Amino acid sequence: MKGGGYYSQHTQGAKHVVNRAGVHVLEHCAKLDISDSGRPFTIADYGAADGGTSLELITAIVEKVREKAPNREIQVVYTDLPHNDFSALFKMLGGQVSELESYLSRFNGVYVSGAGSSFYQQILPSASVDIGFSATAMHWLSSLPGVITNHVHAVGASGDELKNFSDYAQQDWEIILLNRAKELAPGGLLVMANFCIDEEGRYLGNTKGANMFDMFQKLWKELADSGVITHEECRKTTFPQFYKTLEQFQKPFIDPGGPVSLAGLKLEKIYSDVTECPYRAEFNRTGDSVAFANEYVPTLRSWSEGVFMGGLDSSRPLAERQRIVEEFFENYNSMVRKNPEIHAMDYVHVYMVVSKD
Amino acid sequence: MKGGGYYSQHTQGAKHVVNRAGVHVLEHCAKLDISDSGRPFTIADYGAADGGTSLELITAIVEKVREKAPNREIQVVYTDLPHNDFSALFKMLGGQVSELESYLSRFNGVYVSGAGSSFYQQILPSASVDIGFSATAMHWLSSLPGVITNHVHAVGASGDELKNFSDYAQQDWEIILLNRAKELAPGGLLVMANFCIDEEGRYLGNTKGANMFDMFQKLWKELADSGVITHEECRKTTFPQFYKTLEQFQKPFIDPGGPVSLAGLKLEKIYSDVTECPYRAEFNRTGDSVAFANEYVPTLRSWSEGVFMGGLDSSRPLAERQRIVEEFFENYNSMVRKNPEIHAMDYVHVYMVVSKD
Repeated sequence: MKGGGYYSQHTQGAKHVVNRAGVHVLEHCAKLDISDSGRPFTIADYGAADGGTSLELITAIVEKVREKAPNREIQVVYTDLPHNDFSALFKMLGGQVSELESYLSRFNGVYVSGAGSSFYQQILPSASVDIGFSATAMHWLSSLPGVITNHVHAVGASGDELKNFSDYAQQDWEIILLNRAKELAPGGLLVMANFCIDEEGRYLGNTKGANMFDMFQKLWKELADSGVITHEECRKTTFPQFYKTLEQFQKPFIDPGGPVSLAGLKLEKIYSDVTECPYRAEFNRTGDSVAFANEYVPTLRSWSEGVFMGGLDSSRPLAERQRIVEEFFENYNSMVRKNPEIHAMDYVHVYMVVSKD
Repeated sequence: MKGGGYYSQHTQGAKHVVNRAGVHVLEHCAKLDISDSGRPFTIADYGAADGGTSLELITAIVEKVREKAPNREIQVVYTDLPHNDFSALFKMLGGQVSELESYLSRFNGVYVSGAGSSFYQQILPSASVDIGFSATAMHWLSSLPGVITNHVHAVGASGDELKNFSDYAQQDWEIILLNRAKELAPGGLLVMANFCIDEEGRYLGNTKGANMFDMFQKLWKELADSGVITHEECRKTTFPQFYKTLEQFQKPFIDPGGPVSLAGLKLEKIYSDVTECPYRAEFNRTGDSVAFANEYVPTLRSWSEGVFMGGLDSSRPLAERQRIVEEFFENYNSMVRKNPEIHAMDYVHVYMVVSKD
């Protein structure tokens, strides 16, 4: 993933999703009885990247908490994997990115930190989090469960390969929830917006007749057929991701005697919603397919590049791997320019509000 | 500062200092009555860089706390400036650096985070820190107070220019202490090892007749005299650092009615000590001046490179600035090879133990 704000600038859709999920956080805060005493009011953003997409929401939460408890200290913890660009996050929050206003410049008594740990572990002390928040992060599995023979993504898997991914993802989901249950303070709230397969079978990039992941597969396979990469590399390239259905997301909450319920978590709300691809919407307005391709493909690249790089044999020099991936995204760009109307990366999210006893 | 562990590998002396200061921390922990209940036991490392030099000490603290309170959760917060390589820190702690064993792999219930904020601010919530620790960091001033006409460092300043730096540093020191006073929990301890000018007038790199900062000045001036850099660049290059005397370090603690005393801080112990330059010691043993230069100069470079880069005019392309600084350190290397016996970067530290009411 590229650093230095690249991610946020190219993920306008993600920000929209954050703000939508944020409505539930702010509703909760409005009802909360926040006293001035005790430990700092703690907000955790799980899978925060450079913090750009959640900036508005966190600012609104801080505002609301400060309104209710003028002297209560507030802690904001941004979590992501160790290789995340935490410097970009800290620079932005420190006011070093001119186009974004940090809440730190507006409020005293707000303390920010980053935690470079996976959300498959307990990241924060027990019962310390008042608001947990996560947007568009938990589709990443804890590791790659296996092979998908003819596709780069589990959305193209079938039979035993699909079942393998599905079982693994269900187990991962329970691990995520149990760790958050430990971190949440009594009365705390966990709001999540995650990629899903919705009631109509739609998912990221598969809403308007075309299918982004099928495009990835097609273009990657073409590089194999033309000898740029090997068929083995093509086969090995797999997103360690899974998009669950709403039923799968709800499953751990249904059994009152199951570990997630026993840990004190209760599902308050669940629904899916589609966020229109902002690049495609702009193209619909302007008809400018070149601009569309030049904006659209980098946003795909921001989160998928690592997977394609990782699929290439490590014996290839880094520069060669970079050239191949460059070519791959150039091909994607050409394809979009030629046939813009079959491209769109609409987001399909499940929004969940989970309370902790 | 270079990332990816480069810093720690080339700062063996720094690690020695950390462990020496750590003796006071561990003595304190041995006496502490640590109960199993309440908020997490919190350790803060201020100016932690990649966390490599304090790894042994923090492991020992965690061991000691866990021994006394087997179920108490522990939080370790590493602070440094926003541009610090927090990924290197998180990777190391996550066990991704093979030669270092992370305490996270040995102990459960230990949570790690990083805070990318200056120690001239309050970084952590009030009354939340049980052990504050800082090694070889607080000689960096909050900003550059002014010009030093004929030298790159305040150790070469005199008259009004010296007074300007000295007054500024004294003010900075009080700001550092007042912010730590806010963060420390009642009964908490702050242990610091800072560069100083000791009772005999010795300081970093000025113990054995030669003077490292004078060498910096001499070589930088030579680049100006030979036209590689401008005289204006030479004059503008100044370390935003100050080495205080022990008297200056003690000053804020002396007046019982002063802000630092009123904030609850009490100086329990202060003394200076010299840590021998490990590279020079190795040279004394082997007589290999080439190996000495090749090990010694990179360690200087690790913390000084940014200052020389920053002194160059920003209108020069980055690659040109890098070439100039490369040449500068090559010159330093040659000088060490030719006259190894006048080079050594002995550390001269003040060790301070400060308690909080």
